[in-house]
Amino acid sequence: MQSAEINRVKSYWDSMGAAGQPASIAEMRLNDDQWAVLTAEPDNVDYVHTTMGGVRCLWAMPKGSDHERVLVCFHGGGYLMGSVYSHRKLYGQLAKAAGVRALLVDYRLMPEHAFPAQSDDAIQVYRALLLLGIHSQCISFVGDSAGGGLAVSTALRARDEGLPQPAGLMTMSAWTDMSLRGSSYETNRSKDLVFRREMIDGLVAMLLGSESDRHHPYASPIDGDLKGLAPVYLQVGGDENLLDDSVGLAERAKAAGVETKIDIFDGMLHSFQMAAGRAPEADEAIARLAAWIRPRLQPLASV
Amino acid sequence: MQSAEINRVKSYWDSMGAAGQPASIAEMRLNDDQWAVLTAEPDNVDYVHTTMGGVRCLWAMPKGSDHERVLVCFHGGGYLMGSVYSHRKLYGQLAKAAGVRALLVDYRLMPEHAFPAQSDDAIQVYRALLLLGIHSQCISFVGDSAGGGLAVSTALRARDEGLPQPAGLMTMSAWTDMSLRGSSYETNRSKDLVFRREMIDGLVAMLLGSESDRHHPYASPIDGDLKGLAPVYLQVGGDENLLDDSVGLAERAKAAGVETKIDIFDGMLHSFQMAAGRAPEADEAIARLAAWIRPRLQPLASV
Repeated sequence: MQSAEINRVKSYWDSMGAAGQPASIAEMRLNDDQWAVLTAEPDNVDYVHTTMGGVRCLWAMPKGSDHERVLVCFHGGGYLMGSVYSHRKLYGQLAKAAGVRALLVDYRLMPEHAFPAQSDDAIQVYRALLLLGIHSQCISFVGDSAGGGLAVSTALRARDEGLPQPAGLMTMSAWTDMSLRGSSYETNRSKDLVFRREMIDGLVAMLLGSESDRHHPYASPIDGDLKGLAPVYLQVGGDENLLDDSVGLAERAKAAGVETKIDIFDGMLHSFQMAAGRAPEADEAIARLAAWIRPRLQPLASV
Repeated sequence: MQSAEINRVKSYWDSMGAAGQPASIAEMRLNDDQWAVLTAEPDNVDYVHTTMGGVRCLWAMPKGSDHERVLVCFHGGGYLMGSVYSHRKLYGQLAKAAGVRALLVDYRLMPEHAFPAQSDDAIQVYRALLLLGIHSQCISFVGDSAGGGLAVSTALRARDEGLPQPAGLMTMSAWTDMSLRGSSYETNRSKDLVFRREMIDGLVAMLLGSESDRHHPYASPIDGDLKGLAPVYLQVGGDENLLDDSVGLAERAKAAGVETKIDIFDGMLHSFQMAAGRAPEADEAIARLAAWIRPRLQPLASV
């Protein structure tokens, strides 16, 4: 039995599905405001703009939170829309639940900036945090949808570039496979009207300059060598087309020896956690993320 | 010729008018989020929660703004709804335009708290700012709708309690008359479907414990002795039922020797400035408010 509040997520996606192709990218991005309406305001969270490694970011700082421990947050929106504002409340809720602060990364979007601009911005922010003296074991990456893929791929890139792994990786409805191999595109097609293969394929074409990039691990982390990756916790809705993007990544991570946990939420749609503060299903998911990361984020004194 | 963007304000009020009486106050307040969607995010404005004189407030601080000069902002919502969050962006836009910071007052709402809780909270915040060492001539009050009335009545109360006047008072679609004497309730009735006399009368009944309070100057500032009031600048939409609440207040203020300016915006509806950052009509109004208050807010060094 789903809550009335979580149905607002379904209504939101239904309206997106029904609306069809928007007239322009500007109009599409206006819709970010409506996306944000799904999330309740987390009280007593302060928001401060900053620049980190040359990349615009927004701190979400719950009053009384531990400022030495940081969730680096990558918002969703298909690398095309979404913003630190559309996801301010979601990551504010998570930061509050975890008792730490969140740094939302305002990474560059396509079509103005195609791959690897998003990856470049993400790794720059992580590098800047480390240079500021924040210990890697006091940092977790977290992201939803495209931002979930970016959270994982940034950890891969950190390893490749000789940077330490963060304390953990968390994803919500991560988009990890640029080759769209998931059978959930078929099995959930009738339940998830928005994230259908043809739509996602359009996003890939816009993001990636060449066919070969579809397997580039910084764009499509499911294709990466996952060895040495930080512990990862994936959340995904059972009804979404992108279900297999998380299931597949979890399988590959486990096979690579990565500490892996996946929660599939029955009957839930894409990034249902956006209903945080309103729907018990979303609050339960946020609470699980917070409970998973809290003991992994080391207090500064111990590292 | 009105902009397409300002029509979003009309659509918003139309939807409110068509929706009729909401099922509950909680449901009504959920709608605050939709109200907020009208306003574009003012970039590079930081938001920090604080307590001022025991009253919860939210700072909206544009990067690079003068932190010694403060707009004390009273949000609208009929003393029943609205919040520092629904109006965060509106007053962030205004603060940015004026180059100062805004303090949004989270005053208590009815029906949980009836008059004079709102007035008590407002004067407490002003008193606390003065005690902190912010000079009265570095402070302006500003409010929309019910908050516009509160801006004026708080200045009246400051005078009565021996506090100095702020540098200026600004209102948008102020609700100043608890006796609902405006003839604009009739002349604009067909254009303004929401703020009709019967609806406003219901708010008054909820706010005020006794009939005599309808003329209490801290609830109904149009009934107050306006002598000695700070300079006041009123903005109001030409199509709104509350037009005469501003016109009447302006007349009485002028008669009392108060420096008074009023702008009636043709064809505009209640608090159309909520479309700031999107609609040129709203941006023009915000720019005029900023231009009016900027020279009145004294730099700290000169007071």
